[in-house]
Amino acid sequence: MTRKWGTSKIMDNYIFSERSKAHLDELAAMTNSELERLKENSAKNGYCKKSIVEAMWYSLSAGGKRIRPALMLEFCRICGGDVKKVLPSACALEMIHTFSLIHDDLPCMDDDDLRRGKPSCHKAYGEAEALLAGDALLNLSYEIISGSDLPAETKITVISELSRDVGINGMIGGQVIDTSYNVEMTGDLLFEMYGMKTGSLLKAACKIGCIAANADETKLKSAEAYAEKLGLAFQIKDDILDVSGDEKLLGKPIGSDKESGKTTYVSLYGLEESRKTAEKLTKEAISELDNFGDNEFLKELTMFLLARNY
Amino acid sequence: MTRKWGTSKIMDNYIFSERSKAHLDELAAMTNSELERLKENSAKNGYCKKSIVEAMWYSLSAGGKRIRPALMLEFCRICGGDVKKVLPSACALEMIHTFSLIHDDLPCMDDDDLRRGKPSCHKAYGEAEALLAGDALLNLSYEIISGSDLPAETKITVISELSRDVGINGMIGGQVIDTSYNVEMTGDLLFEMYGMKTGSLLKAACKIGCIAANADETKLKSAEAYAEKLGLAFQIKDDILDVSGDEKLLGKPIGSDKESGKTTYVSLYGLEESRKTAEKLTKEAISELDNFGDNEFLKELTMFLLARNY
Repeated sequence: MTRKWGTSKIMDNYIFSERSKAHLDELAAMTNSELERLKENSAKNGYCKKSIVEAMWYSLSAGGKRIRPALMLEFCRICGGDVKKVLPSACALEMIHTFSLIHDDLPCMDDDDLRRGKPSCHKAYGEAEALLAGDALLNLSYEIISGSDLPAETKITVISELSRDVGINGMIGGQVIDTSYNVEMTGDLLFEMYGMKTGSLLKAACKIGCIAANADETKLKSAEAYAEKLGLAFQIKDDILDVSGDEKLLGKPIGSDKESGKTTYVSLYGLEESRKTAEKLTKEAISELDNFGDNEFLKELTMFLLARNY
Repeated sequence: MTRKWGTSKIMDNYIFSERSKAHLDELAAMTNSELERLKENSAKNGYCKKSIVEAMWYSLSAGGKRIRPALMLEFCRICGGDVKKVLPSACALEMIHTFSLIHDDLPCMDDDDLRRGKPSCHKAYGEAEALLAGDALLNLSYEIISGSDLPAETKITVISELSRDVGINGMIGGQVIDTSYNVEMTGDLLFEMYGMKTGSLLKAACKIGCIAANADETKLKSAEAYAEKLGLAFQIKDDILDVSGDEKLLGKPIGSDKESGKTTYVSLYGLEESRKTAEKLTKEAISELDNFGDNEFLKELTMFLLARNY
């Protein structure tokens, strides 16, 4: 079957092919197995290990889709790199994503009791432990990359790119906007925030995959542009699911954004416009993938992320 | 005047020489000026910059003695390294120290309203902002090292050592013990915790100074042994100051450890024994410095840290 990438109504009609689904599962399994190995390594010596390692891996194993590692591994693969060598960095990125979720859920931030249908880290382990588990995950990610099997120059580039994307002009900066600017949130600022809070880590995922494969500047730029579009579409889809999703599948109550008075893309522009924008951004993201060969899986994954119901 | 390093009563009688005091001031000035430069660099673009950068540098500029950067710079110097090249790493370490203080002061941790006589970060900027400022400082430290002017191989070694010393088997692990084991604290566990919570960053400071100067394994081992002794002495001295210090000089109330029910070296062994142990550890630390040439300043600094009244 020839799929028409450009057709509309992706969100309602898209079906993830068995082959791509299997490939995504395979990438997630690689990530999970490497995370297990890293857990064993981390829990050596010291009185502290039990509780903090438990809290860290509790959140790391709470059923994430491993989208960021999958993107990193796949960009590395289609650029001709050695996926095994970038695998620790993929886990490091997932750790940073998890750290941000743990801190985001804390009472002084979003104060969320549930994450993916389970008690959030501070509900399960207490606030102090959750705070430290988040700190430890952020820190561990750099330890893991520095100890991975890439050339030193490449590792420095990876750490440099990643830390910039995580920092005050990236993910953490987005959280700062989310925390402090909510009252006078405009469409432009919302997009800026989505780009920083969600887009930055996706950008890091795609770029690091390319960097590990020594991809050229053109591919790096395309990967970055792809991730920017994907990040916005992903976040708008999150907003859509918050008003129209299935609580059981999402693992959290519907309407939580509205209840907490959050400005979202849906609250600003309505559901129909949000669907249109998410679909438009997804198509633009997919067109960036034409600069890569062997891009079938990534194209399907991109549509899957738009069509997802959880 | 020939000083007798081995004489007792360092704590009561020691006077920091004018020359060493000037050198410490000089190292602190270098650190502060580099921190200013890094602040300018960090505050580029993005809606978020103002509040978070303010909160980060509020705590970074809150009157720390810059002991960790001074140790790093000085170990680099006496091992024949280029102090300017390790200066960004020295600032990165001070950022990590500051991150740990900000998170330590949060209500879910020690709940301290004052730090060095000023409102702690969350009292000045709110809890969410303080949480994110701490996160951002930890992350920025790796960004700064990765962008510094050392060879890539050296930077990877620095990041690897530092992240291990910061992580769950180092500083953060020490905080976990501090948070969770307090009820049944024994002398051994207290030493383990002091070594992790305070010793780890001092160890990172001394070792990274040596690494940046390509010092040999013997020097690295001595630097590490020195830092371990110093860390314990430093922490015991903190405990002593908490019961016998001057509130005005310390910038915090006396007796806060006792009030919060904290086990300290003083509460376990009494003031006199604590003074003896701190002095013994200081002497052992100083003897490790004999493996380095041009060690006069470091020896004086070590005694100064024992004799300090703030």
